[in-house]
Amino acid sequence: MELLENLKWRYATKAMSGEKVDQDKVDRIIEAARLAPTSSGLQPFEIIVVKNQEVKKKIKTIAWNQPIITDCSHLLVFAAWDTYTAERINYMFDLTNEIRGFKNEGWENYRQMLLDSYPQKDAEENFNHAAKQAYIAFSQAIAAAAFEKVDATPVEGFDPDAVDEILGLREKGLRSAVLLPIGYRQEENDWLANLVKVRKSTEDLVTVIE
Amino acid sequence: MELLENLKWRYATKAMSGEKVDQDKVDRIIEAARLAPTSSGLQPFEIIVVKNQEVKKKIKTIAWNQPIITDCSHLLVFAAWDTYTAERINYMFDLTNEIRGFKNEGWENYRQMLLDSYPQKDAEENFNHAAKQAYIAFSQAIAAAAFEKVDATPVEGFDPDAVDEILGLREKGLRSAVLLPIGYRQEENDWLANLVKVRKSTEDLVTVIE
Repeated sequence: MELLENLKWRYATKAMSGEKVDQDKVDRIIEAARLAPTSSGLQPFEIIVVKNQEVKKKIKTIAWNQPIITDCSHLLVFAAWDTYTAERINYMFDLTNEIRGFKNEGWENYRQMLLDSYPQKDAEENFNHAAKQAYIAFSQAIAAAAFEKVDATPVEGFDPDAVDEILGLREKGLRSAVLLPIGYRQEENDWLANLVKVRKSTEDLVTVIE
Repeated sequence: MELLENLKWRYATKAMSGEKVDQDKVDRIIEAARLAPTSSGLQPFEIIVVKNQEVKKKIKTIAWNQPIITDCSHLLVFAAWDTYTAERINYMFDLTNEIRGFKNEGWENYRQMLLDSYPQKDAEENFNHAAKQAYIAFSQAIAAAAFEKVDATPVEGFDPDAVDEILGLREKGLRSAVLLPIGYRQEENDWLANLVKVRKSTEDLVTVIE
């Protein structure tokens, strides 16, 4: 399967060359994130694509000074909704009705059920839930990058509050969840480039209940 | 890109036929989850593959009686570590040294840094972090299923404590995070089968910082 080959090809590149990724490739990587499934189809996240070198430098300082933050081509910031609101839920249900061209009673009942539950929950719990949905999309972007032979390094090592501040995310009702620098590996400076990929064995990962 | 085509093909199938998915397809779907990247490479989750119909029936009762839970071929339960322990961290670092055949000082320092942080954190915070890693793998399994033209429906609508109880997960230091029934769509009984896929526009999803 081509997906498996690409997942084997990719690795968490630690040194990037600064070479730019073509826009059509970036577009397809983002498209994979856009198509990813999310809970109730709410897509409770946005993607901030940082191309600006000064902004990348600021983020680098609160991300353990990892060189890939500035040496990547595009820094993708996956930012999840800070909570679920009635407005946000209604937006997606209205969009669905508009695109499909009809209202469905079951779907409207489901909307009401969500309106009666999510907005009343604790914002932190809602953000955690939204962040998981962002991770589903983030994962598809990682796979898509590999299909484009673009390197992509998942980065959780950063100060999320500082990223929120730098990008003005809180004002938009967003909180940074995870970063994905994309670019091209610089193998000669990357200690990880030629090391064997390590994963648990299938036996350690999987239990079958026959 | 074949990945995008497959992401467009898939949908959250609401009715499955009961037809069995060949084992080699199941193996490749799980292999995609196994190859997925996780934070520090710890792979803090396991996958329980439920084939047993009686166990599926029990889970269905605490999952809103969704028919796909019993009409799927295999029910994949992604279960995350209940917390990070020194033993679990050391296992992955030792495995890495064993597979790569050498010890690396930077890597050992990194091990120590993780040992000095994760195990001291609140178990709930650690579980939430581990669950996000499980979602990265879960997302790759969804994509892999689409490559195999196997339907896969993300399911968050279930009582996690009850699933933990049914599968005896807590005793193993695991907690259920998300379910993925895989099988084959039964279009004539699925209201969602022929509806247009709805996603936010790229403009609504993405902000570019030039």
